[in-house]
Amino acid sequence: MIDKCLGAQRSRKIQKALRHCKVTILCLVLTIVVLRGTIGAGKFGTPEQDFVEIRDHFYSRKHAEPHRVLEEVQTTSSNDRAAIDTNNYNEFDINKILIDEESDDSKPDSNKACSLGPKISDWDDQRSRWLKENPNYPNFIGPNKPRVLLVTGSSPKPCENPVGDHYLLKSIKNKIDYCRLHGIEIFYNMALLDAEMAGFWAKLPLIRKLLLSHPEVEFLWWMDSDAMFTDMAFEVPWERYKDSNLVMHGWNEMVYDQKNWIGLNTGSFLLRNGQWALDILDAWAPMGPKGKIREEAGKVLTRELKDRPVFEADDQSAMVYLLATQRAKWGNKVYLESAYYLHGYWGILVDRYEEMIENYRPGLGDHRWPLVTHFVGCKPCGKFGDYPVERCLKQMDRAFNFGDNQILQIYGFTHKSLASRRVKRVRNETVNPLEVKDELGLLHPAFKAVKVSSS
Amino acid sequence: MIDKCLGAQRSRKIQKALRHCKVTILCLVLTIVVLRGTIGAGKFGTPEQDFVEIRDHFYSRKHAEPHRVLEEVQTTSSNDRAAIDTNNYNEFDINKILIDEESDDSKPDSNKACSLGPKISDWDDQRSRWLKENPNYPNFIGPNKPRVLLVTGSSPKPCENPVGDHYLLKSIKNKIDYCRLHGIEIFYNMALLDAEMAGFWAKLPLIRKLLLSHPEVEFLWWMDSDAMFTDMAFEVPWERYKDSNLVMHGWNEMVYDQKNWIGLNTGSFLLRNGQWALDILDAWAPMGPKGKIREEAGKVLTRELKDRPVFEADDQSAMVYLLATQRAKWGNKVYLESAYYLHGYWGILVDRYEEMIENYRPGLGDHRWPLVTHFVGCKPCGKFGDYPVERCLKQMDRAFNFGDNQILQIYGFTHKSLASRRVKRVRNETVNPLEVKDELGLLHPAFKAVKVSSS
Repeated sequence: MIDKCLGAQRSRKIQKALRHCKVTILCLVLTIVVLRGTIGAGKFGTPEQDFVEIRDHFYSRKHAEPHRVLEEVQTTSSNDRAAIDTNNYNEFDINKILIDEESDDSKPDSNKACSLGPKISDWDDQRSRWLKENPNYPNFIGPNKPRVLLVTGSSPKPCENPVGDHYLLKSIKNKIDYCRLHGIEIFYNMALLDAEMAGFWAKLPLIRKLLLSHPEVEFLWWMDSDAMFTDMAFEVPWERYKDSNLVMHGWNEMVYDQKNWIGLNTGSFLLRNGQWALDILDAWAPMGPKGKIREEAGKVLTRELKDRPVFEADDQSAMVYLLATQRAKWGNKVYLESAYYLHGYWGILVDRYEEMIENYRPGLGDHRWPLVTHFVGCKPCGKFGDYPVERCLKQMDRAFNFGDNQILQIYGFTHKSLASRRVKRVRNETVNPLEVKDELGLLHPAFKAVKVSSS
Repeated sequence: MIDKCLGAQRSRKIQKALRHCKVTILCLVLTIVVLRGTIGAGKFGTPEQDFVEIRDHFYSRKHAEPHRVLEEVQTTSSNDRAAIDTNNYNEFDINKILIDEESDDSKPDSNKACSLGPKISDWDDQRSRWLKENPNYPNFIGPNKPRVLLVTGSSPKPCENPVGDHYLLKSIKNKIDYCRLHGIEIFYNMALLDAEMAGFWAKLPLIRKLLLSHPEVEFLWWMDSDAMFTDMAFEVPWERYKDSNLVMHGWNEMVYDQKNWIGLNTGSFLLRNGQWALDILDAWAPMGPKGKIREEAGKVLTRELKDRPVFEADDQSAMVYLLATQRAKWGNKVYLESAYYLHGYWGILVDRYEEMIENYRPGLGDHRWPLVTHFVGCKPCGKFGDYPVERCLKQMDRAFNFGDNQILQIYGFTHKSLASRRVKRVRNETVNPLEVKDELGLLHPAFKAVKVSSS
């Protein structure tokens, strides 16, 4: 109607203004609801209800406004894609994830990024249809061997600490080595999402995008850039998780009973591709938007979780809160794994490497030989970490060498010590290289071999 | 005999001393022969003959001394491996590749590293037997699709230039992206071989080691850390090389006729696993040993090759010299490729990226859209490059973004400009992500799909 009576451009401007109003109202509601959690629910409901309301407010079809908002997104997308001015769309577009750090868009704005994308409800169907039509891209690449994509990343800017990029480089080499041995692909992200990639929330839209783009991926393995593989021989027990969709290192009691903010760790986790993943990402995201929302959500988390310091909302605390307050909804598909170190806190591991070498062997993955050593709090890329810089860097070198030795031994070498970059030969060259037994069986590991048909 | 009359330890010491003498004599001969090339052959022979003599001196069974030297290496290896004191073995061990930079071993020593390892003559047989016995590790992973291992690396030390590691990080991300799309595995080396990895000669022992350890690898693709993929859609034409064992970017005329030192480039090349590869590595290596040999060999190369500046022997010049002087021996298996940029000199490419975007598309691989942009001479990790630092870094950013855009477009994003780290959305989210056509067909490329058998 409007288009007939006014110029098309004017009508678009009016529609844009209307959309702005709607989003402003929606996000203000969100802010108020979160604020209630800090002031006290009073007669307005509990934090859990708040959390549920925030989520429902965006995705429920019961509310007219969000419904219309979503419809417009979809209509615009399908009908008029070519004409979309991405700048105009940004202000309205709750899908806009990547923020221009130097434009106005990057300033904290409660209107920004209230959802990860248009609601998809039939992803399992879409995905299974695609897999049938694309047998050359199977989601299982061997018996009990899902196709896994390891996702990690860092800021596109050079580190403030000059040596930080060197540790990022060693960290990705470490991941390349593990993944090569285990038949896992890597996606290294450097698109600037928040001010820093280590800004943790940026992983959510990235993960969603990758799941939806790669239906052939069965498990997405998120891993922080400050986490390193220290057991090159350990294969994740995929069968154990056949009924689970999200695997994190943690303990049930610490999450569900204590609501302890470190009851689980989101620095290294497995997420199965599917509708459930999209749903939990949507439920996880609302505390993330930079600025007032994230600050106020942080206060809720500090108040509600055990031992949590005061700081803005982080994805890990938000996950604890989500699971603890909505166990019935998510709990049966979440596996909190403590039998091996899918994430291993560096503080209790790094001084024991020599003892591990003395007494144990790779392949155990647990406290005896941790799969992952995770340097939480070290922040080698930034200027200020939670621990003395020298301790962190020295231990990161040791952890890197501990893992690297397992690669080098395949080829007959080892580091001169865990502190040394230098390597030495431990096995001589031979004219019969194929008779060499590499002790850890990592040269041609069974968990990597994939039968390939000849056509 | 000696063992019966003397203690075992004394006899080992005497044998060791004898071996030291032999190796000293051998390497002195090498030095003299190389020196002759600079003084003038006179009645002693031509440089070509010198080159041949150097090689034959080490590997020919016609000379008693080298023969005995090799025998002792093999005997020691197989009989007494457990008792080998690696420190003692180092001085004799011409196989010792990795040099302790802080010990005496690291000082330039004409006794060091005169060969890459014990001579293997039946590698094709060993390899083909292994492949038969290991059908789960085939050397072809699809029709016309060989198994390829991309090998690259950098120093284990932080770069002298603080920003250097950031560029190494971007460079490896770039390689991860290309290789993920093309089903290629990566080996990132950080073991300290020479003073710096960019010391070029260190790649030879690394390559040999990897070929012999990985018989399943059909092609080893060496790529310098300062080379980046700028055409994510281009698949190497493997069929073209079915009768070749070594593929480098270059021109026949410039190598065989002009002996031009940049007639080919060894910053990005393909080497087929097999006996021929071992042989050419052995033939290539003699000019490499640090110190007098490398210096003197450098003078030969400057004198013999067209336009070569004065500096120590480098692997690229040595390859030109090897091919130009022994074409009959190697030439028929060497493919000098100039139809696309397996290596593309950055100087003539980087200012044309906008023009390329305007007029062409990815997938061409050649001057219109180069497969590889190689920043020869920039040396971002060190203090002194051959070009102004700012020009190099700025162009490396542009080249990275040029390639990265091809990855980002898969997911609906692009850099705001070739100079900008920032990204912007160019395709909206949709509730039907699997109907999205990614224009370059990189999301599920045909050259990556591999049929997997179900058992």
